[in-house]
Amino acid sequence: MIGEVTRDASPGSLVQVLDKEGKPFGSGFWNPKAGMPLRIFDHGGDVVGEDFFIGAIQRAASLRREVMKLDETTEAYRAIHADADQLPGLVADKFGKVMSLEVTNLAAFQRLDDWIPAIHEAFGTEKVHVRVDPDLARIEGIPSLTHPLSEKLRPLKIREHGVTFEIDPSGGHKTGFFCDQRENRKTFASLAKDRSVLDLCCYTGGFSVSASLAGAADVTAVDLDENAVEMAKRNANLNQQRIKFTHADAFTWSRTMIENGRQWDLVIADPPKFIHNREDRIGHNKYHDLNTLAMKMVKPGGLFVTCSCSGMLSADEFEKIVVSAAHRQNRRLQIFDRTGAGPDHPTISNYPESRYLKLLWCRVL
Amino acid sequence: MIGEVTRDASPGSLVQVLDKEGKPFGSGFWNPKAGMPLRIFDHGGDVVGEDFFIGAIQRAASLRREVMKLDETTEAYRAIHADADQLPGLVADKFGKVMSLEVTNLAAFQRLDDWIPAIHEAFGTEKVHVRVDPDLARIEGIPSLTHPLSEKLRPLKIREHGVTFEIDPSGGHKTGFFCDQRENRKTFASLAKDRSVLDLCCYTGGFSVSASLAGAADVTAVDLDENAVEMAKRNANLNQQRIKFTHADAFTWSRTMIENGRQWDLVIADPPKFIHNREDRIGHNKYHDLNTLAMKMVKPGGLFVTCSCSGMLSADEFEKIVVSAAHRQNRRLQIFDRTGAGPDHPTISNYPESRYLKLLWCRVL
Repeated sequence: MIGEVTRDASPGSLVQVLDKEGKPFGSGFWNPKAGMPLRIFDHGGDVVGEDFFIGAIQRAASLRREVMKLDETTEAYRAIHADADQLPGLVADKFGKVMSLEVTNLAAFQRLDDWIPAIHEAFGTEKVHVRVDPDLARIEGIPSLTHPLSEKLRPLKIREHGVTFEIDPSGGHKTGFFCDQRENRKTFASLAKDRSVLDLCCYTGGFSVSASLAGAADVTAVDLDENAVEMAKRNANLNQQRIKFTHADAFTWSRTMIENGRQWDLVIADPPKFIHNREDRIGHNKYHDLNTLAMKMVKPGGLFVTCSCSGMLSADEFEKIVVSAAHRQNRRLQIFDRTGAGPDHPTISNYPESRYLKLLWCRVL
Repeated sequence: MIGEVTRDASPGSLVQVLDKEGKPFGSGFWNPKAGMPLRIFDHGGDVVGEDFFIGAIQRAASLRREVMKLDETTEAYRAIHADADQLPGLVADKFGKVMSLEVTNLAAFQRLDDWIPAIHEAFGTEKVHVRVDPDLARIEGIPSLTHPLSEKLRPLKIREHGVTFEIDPSGGHKTGFFCDQRENRKTFASLAKDRSVLDLCCYTGGFSVSASLAGAADVTAVDLDENAVEMAKRNANLNQQRIKFTHADAFTWSRTMIENGRQWDLVIADPPKFIHNREDRIGHNKYHDLNTLAMKMVKPGGLFVTCSCSGMLSADEFEKIVVSAAHRQNRRLQIFDRTGAGPDHPTISNYPESRYLKLLWCRVL
């Protein structure tokens, strides 16, 4: 699709894009080494300058702070969502006074000295941690896995809808916290009062702790990741909640519970990404199996919430898998909501993406 | 698909359904005159009795009242959603102490003497209005357009999320109120504070009044239905809000505003159903045109909420139309939410339906 590139364009350059007739088409980042060498972020006729990104940072802040008023309900949210905020290569999560950045292209990395102060000003943050994926660094030619402005930070605590969570912004490749499930955690909690709750693939306990604090009769939670379970236990303690956390494989554990006839009033399954490419039958089967097992543990007339964060699986395909798992055990689902990631994870119309995160909210008859 | 019917099955009968091998398949309503002669509502092996429906009414009430706790936030909700609540042929909206029923098949009509007392008991209602569509009555063989238990009721007032609305349960073919947009009205209101708001196809003012009460700087609203606009004005007065309501065709009116360069901070378009069959190009074009016009009236960086209640238009198709309308005017959309009807409008897994109501929540760049 790319015809000619002028000589002054170097890897990471902000370039003007012209169409076949030489007419202005927009502005983008250029990096010949990248998987997508040209990343267009503006479709105006005029060439944008570096100040475009400072404006984009301010627009991102305005959307979260002035439009969505997220500061009123949470200290943790997705502040910048890459292309969807016209900042390709940059993802930023705000945790109180800390901004946790993930940089995925050279152009963004080259501009951090300018962008970080602008981010602090727009979002009221004071410290920053920068993460660069080693694989992307190699592909993109990012010169370092660290950045001079990045600080080594200690785990911190944030409040979200009245619940306290520990977050480790410098710990490994994950913070232990997914902002995208925030509104879903709140909705889940609203369903939990006086109900027995099962949380399959509980990770660091976001759904479990929210449900327990909202008055669940009891909460049982399972995850295969030992570190996540440890953090989940700390999150329960932080909120003075008693939750039965188990470090186990959700599939194996569930089969044992089913053999013992155990059932719950409210069950959630929020597994890690099972599908890694379009024709991933193994991933499809995993969703089918996990949903089959999970629903067997839902009491008649009980509630079931099921999640998929596989971007390669469409909402319709996911629903088909879940419905088929229900019908094979001769049960019917009353689907009363279909949700996704919170509004701080927008999509942009020129990079059409369906929802990577999909949730079905059901009563199991 | 239907092989044999025993002689004792008469129109409206509750019948046991057997598969080809004669094995029990489920239970359904039988009516040879109907467009869909057999309507299966249960897939259990045993034949259900008439008490199944009393149980279904109780389950419907439990979902709204115990699970969703709707009584805490609204006096108006969809109490029974036909097949999705295992009650084919019956739709019920609760408005305070009044239950407004819409009956769409013979079997439901025949059972109203039993069902209505059970509905009152489960939902705490005291009066009922029964509506029968004349076309369906003819097709189904429903003997009357009225029912002995149905009362002629005066317009009443309900509260929803702190907003008061007038509802006319006996007035014409509509009550003037759509419960399905309840959660969307609340979210819309949360975006309105200090913003200028435009409501295209405002109907009886649900979005306008909610936005005004939430502190919108000013609200302008347009609808082609003169009676709806009159009711919208009453709703504004009931809530002591000043709103500029105009009785006009949204397309014509919008063109005038665009010529005059008028723009708003927050625009919603919630038109009536434009698409009536799968290949309805006129309907598609109407959505494209209305969205084009509506977005031209959104200030740069302003917010746009667009709705489609056409069940024949998928969520993906609708999004494509809206995105194309944006790109043709060289604007980009940050889509930050995708919602539908509230949870009191569930779908059931054995009658797969995509969302008939679809909303896109966008910032227009």
